[in-house]
Amino acid sequence: MNTLGRLFRVSLFGESHGHGVGVLVDGVPAGIPFGVEDVQPELDRRRPGQSLLTTQRQEGDRVEIQSGVHEGRTTGAPVLMLIRNEGQRSQDYAKAPTVPRPGHSDYPARERFGGWNDPRGGGMFSGRLTACHVMAGALAQKLLDAHGVQVAAHTTRIGSIATPRTFTVAQIRETVERTPVRCADLDAAKAMEEEILQARAAKDSVGGIVECIVEGLPVGWGEPNADSVESLLAHAIFSVPATKGLEFGDGFRFAERRGSEASDPYYRDEAGRVRTRANHNGGILGGITTGMPLVFRVAFKPTSSIAVPQPTLDLATGEPTPLQVTGRHDPCIVPRAVPVVEGVARMVLADVLLMHAALRPREVKREW
Amino acid sequence: MNTLGRLFRVSLFGESHGHGVGVLVDGVPAGIPFGVEDVQPELDRRRPGQSLLTTQRQEGDRVEIQSGVHEGRTTGAPVLMLIRNEGQRSQDYAKAPTVPRPGHSDYPARERFGGWNDPRGGGMFSGRLTACHVMAGALAQKLLDAHGVQVAAHTTRIGSIATPRTFTVAQIRETVERTPVRCADLDAAKAMEEEILQARAAKDSVGGIVECIVEGLPVGWGEPNADSVESLLAHAIFSVPATKGLEFGDGFRFAERRGSEASDPYYRDEAGRVRTRANHNGGILGGITTGMPLVFRVAFKPTSSIAVPQPTLDLATGEPTPLQVTGRHDPCIVPRAVPVVEGVARMVLADVLLMHAALRPREVKREW
Amino acid sequence: MNTLGRLFRVSLFGESHGHGVGVLVDGVPAGIPFGVEDVQPELDRRRPGQSLLTTQRQEGDRVEIQSGVHEGRTTGAPVLMLIRNEGQRSQDYAKAPTVPRPGHSDYPARERFGGWNDPRGGGMFSGRLTACHVMAGALAQKLLDAHGVQVAAHTTRIGSIATPRTFTVAQIRETVERTPVRCADLDAAKAMEEEILQARAAKDSVGGIVECIVEGLPVGWGEPNADSVESLLAHAIFSVPATKGLEFGDGFRFAERRGSEASDPYYRDEAGRVRTRANHNGGILGGITTGMPLVFRVAFKPTSSIAVPQPTLDLATGEPTPLQVTGRHDPCIVPRAVPVVEGVARMVLADVLLMHAALRPREVKREW
Amino acid sequence: MNTLGRLFRVSLFGESHGHGVGVLVDGVPAGIPFGVEDVQPELDRRRPGQSLLTTQRQEGDRVEIQSGVHEGRTTGAPVLMLIRNEGQRSQDYAKAPTVPRPGHSDYPARERFGGWNDPRGGGMFSGRLTACHVMAGALAQKLLDAHGVQVAAHTTRIGSIATPRTFTVAQIRETVERTPVRCADLDAAKAMEEEILQARAAKDSVGGIVECIVEGLPVGWGEPNADSVESLLAHAIFSVPATKGLEFGDGFRFAERRGSEASDPYYRDEAGRVRTRANHNGGILGGITTGMPLVFRVAFKPTSSIAVPQPTLDLATGEPTPLQVTGRHDPCIVPRAVPVVEGVARMVLADVLLMHAALRPREVKREW
Repeated sequence: MNTLGRLFRVSLFGESHGHGVGVLVDGVPAGIPFGVEDVQPELDRRRPGQSLLTTQRQEGDRVEIQSGVHEGRTTGAPVLMLIRNEGQRSQDYAKAPTVPRPGHSDYPARERFGGWNDPRGGGMFSGRLTACHVMAGALAQKLLDAHGVQVAAHTTRIGSIATPRTFTVAQIRETVERTPVRCADLDAAKAMEEEILQARAAKDSVGGIVECIVEGLPVGWGEPNADSVESLLAHAIFSVPATKGLEFGDGFRFAERRGSEASDPYYRDEAGRVRTRANHNGGILGGITTGMPLVFRVAFKPTSSIAVPQPTLDLATGEPTPLQVTGRHDPCIVPRAVPVVEGVARMVLADVLLMHAALRPREVKREW
Repeated sequence: MNTLGRLFRVSLFGESHGHGVGVLVDGVPAGIPFGVEDVQPELDRRRPGQSLLTTQRQEGDRVEIQSGVHEGRTTGAPVLMLIRNEGQRSQDYAKAPTVPRPGHSDYPARERFGGWNDPRGGGMFSGRLTACHVMAGALAQKLLDAHGVQVAAHTTRIGSIATPRTFTVAQIRETVERTPVRCADLDAAKAMEEEILQARAAKDSVGGIVECIVEGLPVGWGEPNADSVESLLAHAIFSVPATKGLEFGDGFRFAERRGSEASDPYYRDEAGRVRTRANHNGGILGGITTGMPLVFRVAFKPTSSIAVPQPTLDLATGEPTPLQVTGRHDPCIVPRAVPVVEGVARMVLADVLLMHAALRPREVKREW
Repeated sequence: MNTLGRLFRVSLFGESHGHGVGVLVDGVPAGIPFGVEDVQPELDRRRPGQSLLTTQRQEGDRVEIQSGVHEGRTTGAPVLMLIRNEGQRSQDYAKAPTVPRPGHSDYPARERFGGWNDPRGGGMFSGRLTACHVMAGALAQKLLDAHGVQVAAHTTRIGSIATPRTFTVAQIRETVERTPVRCADLDAAKAMEEEILQARAAKDSVGGIVECIVEGLPVGWGEPNADSVESLLAHAIFSVPATKGLEFGDGFRFAERRGSEASDPYYRDEAGRVRTRANHNGGILGGITTGMPLVFRVAFKPTSSIAVPQPTLDLATGEPTPLQVTGRHDPCIVPRAVPVVEGVARMVLADVLLMHAALRPREVKREW
Repeated sequence: MNTLGRLFRVSLFGESHGHGVGVLVDGVPAGIPFGVEDVQPELDRRRPGQSLLTTQRQEGDRVEIQSGVHEGRTTGAPVLMLIRNEGQRSQDYAKAPTVPRPGHSDYPARERFGGWNDPRGGGMFSGRLTACHVMAGALAQKLLDAHGVQVAAHTTRIGSIATPRTFTVAQIRETVERTPVRCADLDAAKAMEEEILQARAAKDSVGGIVECIVEGLPVGWGEPNADSVESLLAHAIFSVPATKGLEFGDGFRFAERRGSEASDPYYRDEAGRVRTRANHNGGILGGITTGMPLVFRVAFKPTSSIAVPQPTLDLATGEPTPLQVTGRHDPCIVPRAVPVVEGVARMVLADVLLMHAALRPREVKREW
């Protein structure tokens, strides 16, 4: 099933080498100013062919808004956004049907769909569908804007290179597009870039981490238990191809710590707002926003399509066969994943926003 | 909202200090042998008071099956399982309403629910609700049994101590209950135990990691995109209090690797089955099971309730105030989280199983 | 699956002769004053044994609120309401397993659940589960109260006797409890009562119609298409056992009319409100409330459990066998269905209310 | 929200005068032969301009399958079907924004969407969206084909003319397309045709009833309570514009009957199958199919767009104003609603089929 969200509901469709890919967004309040100009710049950040760090495939990725918008405003009807495919070279994938590529979904997909799935370019498994997350996120952001919620992601690790620094949304925005690797730490970015080019030169690929910061979230959004903000984000993040890990705040480093080292004590700031002195918990406690920045990190595996020969199996003959993946692939998908992670965060938080509007208490207890 | 699952639907309810906690499970096929005896042993593993490593609170945690089972078999009707509360000491939590405990949901929950949420013992945020995951998991396992799916989790890190070894389900089962810390590596377990006792002695707490292995999964369960096995597991795992990180297979280590180092090449084993030589991807590709063991790890933060004094704020007066959490708390929740993680894995995989039964292809393509 | 509603989510469980029946309600905003006293009076209206018109079974139907309420207010956690069973005489149903009762679910249920369903008293198919709709409705009404929404139903037909009159909520409330048949037209009520007593004397049963009026609904609640107010009500109404028809406004009489005879022209009343001169459409256009009273009617079939001998089949032997249903059954369920229909209307409209809070436009267009 | 179904999920989108209308269908098993040729004939039955009984608007209604189908088979990915708009005359609707048409959604929609909804041709409220039900139904039928499930609807009442006869699927199919009114009783059809032409001549419109028969359903599909077959059908049927009533089997006539007159006694037919001698219940008991034909009837109101002048209100000025709806409207939508009702039945039953595959008992009890 291909729908994310309870109220702000995002349904993906399309294939890498079919007519196109797109997204149907339901649960969009009427009257939100929205147009192609809100989506295209974000899509352009995800689009291939931007630098040597990414695939040299050229895809225009022009969004068309087909429904749900009239005279520059959402109408309350479902919003359909489409990108038509152009210039696919299906022959690059000719071997897929019987020789499954290691690390790709070819083999399990064949079993799952009885062999009927569209094998061209990964079909519905293609990373191309992440354009849908970007489109839905662009619409979601228009809802978040009314609450001052700001989302920014950047690359914090590529292979052996990581930035030790933390950044605010403003800092990320200032520098992130100055480097093709999309890391806000420009020194680290330089080294990361080198790391990718080396992998590329070796016909190999390399993984990395994207960190996402959300500022401006009010206290008290989200739900405990099944619809915790972490749960909703995690569900959506792991729907993005190539994601293999997710952590909030200190994440896995919590496992190494004592309680007294991981405490976020409260204080009142000059403006009278309740804040915490540290933010180990990454802005969420009990599934609910604390008013501190939401911080999470996503681990991406190295692209599985590498030109290094790999041993695999011809399922038709049952015989081992080497496979050398040809075609134009990303030596590292992480730079292009940055706007995707932002898109996912936005769509999930728009859903949280709508849930909050529905379920917030109508009255506040007086006694505190 | 408090429901997990599309078909095998698990709804949690209850509070730490109210009448009790429980779970309503819908989407249970009729005719599955099921009784208290399937649930109670798993609950006993989660229950407090088992060793010095855990809280000294005594909770009987006796499950009662109130509906959906007749003469030892599920009837197809929703299954309600209840645990009545007994022996709570609410006074331990007396300070909660105006002095929010750092690291707990007190403050954001107050904002979320306008102050109306049940503050006693964390109310609906209590770790006590994880008994529900265990109960639902016990029922789910009866569905998985028919397919030979086996789930086992154990502790792989406590603070600075981690086991470097990997284990099979059989290996975990053989040793996990021999140590109160529930680590299958008995040498590491010893050191982990010591780590917890030291934290306890310091009136502090410590975090850790639980690893879960699922064997016997067929190839081709799950969905691409929004309902990937990773997405469904992640959604449910992050609904468990104190979870802050999740990774599949190599997880965050993928970020440091090249594609050629992270490849899972296919081969045919002696029995003629398609297998991969490595299992970096942890048994899932494109959201779908590969037939290799499913492997994931969950990071738990150290218990926030520590007797070490922490600075915080009295929201009633606006003044800073120190807080020393009293009551009987776990110095480390990780040992008790082991059966919870298993329960979550089981309930999610039962849902995946039912989805597969519904959506599997009715016919298989001939040409491969 | 046993859950109704998108946000205000009502899950039914229980069996006629098991431990009890109950309802889990999720999506309840915190801070709503709520207690047993809000539910019990409505339950008492549905409970058997009120007059000769209904079954002589005595069921106490005492509600217990097990979670989600603290110090007289909802907490935002799921609300579990339970009724424990008492005094069931299962032997009355002894023949059920192999001799299916005509008009009951015995036979299709056996096929659906492979024979594992609880056969005692209809199990999960029992009309006893309609107590759940009443309980959920009582909670829903507390949400509706804040908007001035008022729901009242009454009997408008029993067998050959129908009232030709229409009533307001106030009129229904004034008279409906003065007659055991629950018809606001006291003259017709007399004749309806007679109709039921005659059926009873003949060891037979009789069907009828319940009409429901909702006043105080604002303009603009609901959705077009899949979540029209009519769709949501219809879904929930047809989940009530014995319902076989539903119509809104003029309903089936529309089929006999011309457009010019079925028009609801707009005017502005003295208070300046937009109203329609007629209300053929029953308060809904395009799935959305018009501000006029919502009007719908539900057809109930005669109780299938009749003491008149009926031919049926012994599925064990394959032989025809006569069946004379014993036990204490309602000669007409319609009077007891009145509070059930109200309960369903309430729970659905509470869901519509929450959806509206989430999806309403944040800004209104100026130009009209 | 615009999605119907739990597993076979149908999401509608589009507007009457925008780019087009379409449907996204998720939950489609892979490997089902499917193409434009399966959809277009059904669409052609719904399309305007077929006879004098319907609107003279000419809409080509050419379906394009944009995703989810590859080489003539479904792939398991979501299926997007689109119809592009052509030849709309928006000026016909110029008055809509401030002068709400009686019987249309203009006024409540304006309130619901804050005036932002697309007013051209009813926007998302347009009957044009029923093409989506037809498209989704055509795909659903391919799933039903494998089980021998056959759906046929026809007109049973237009204004004062009704057929007293009942028909089988085969009988309906034989005659229904021989008459523009789509009534299987050719004598009644003649009179119905006349009824519509008279309404047309009077610049008026007329309502009617569509009856739908489903044969070939096995025993035991569906669920009790919230997901009864009646509930799911009712939800979807009332999402179709202009539906105001729905009944199953004897429907509202049950209200006039005694239990002994409404009994469906079981017998075993020559082929050894369990059948009922009558079918008052229309093939469903307790929400579950009985193996007898499913029978339901839908009441449609007369088209609200009539050229007879109607008094209404100019919302901009607050003054009364007469309204004479111009444009090319159906004097009776019932003939075109026939394939829509079939489409809805098909999509719902495909969902029921998938739910059954998921939730059916894995084992059958021996003792009967």
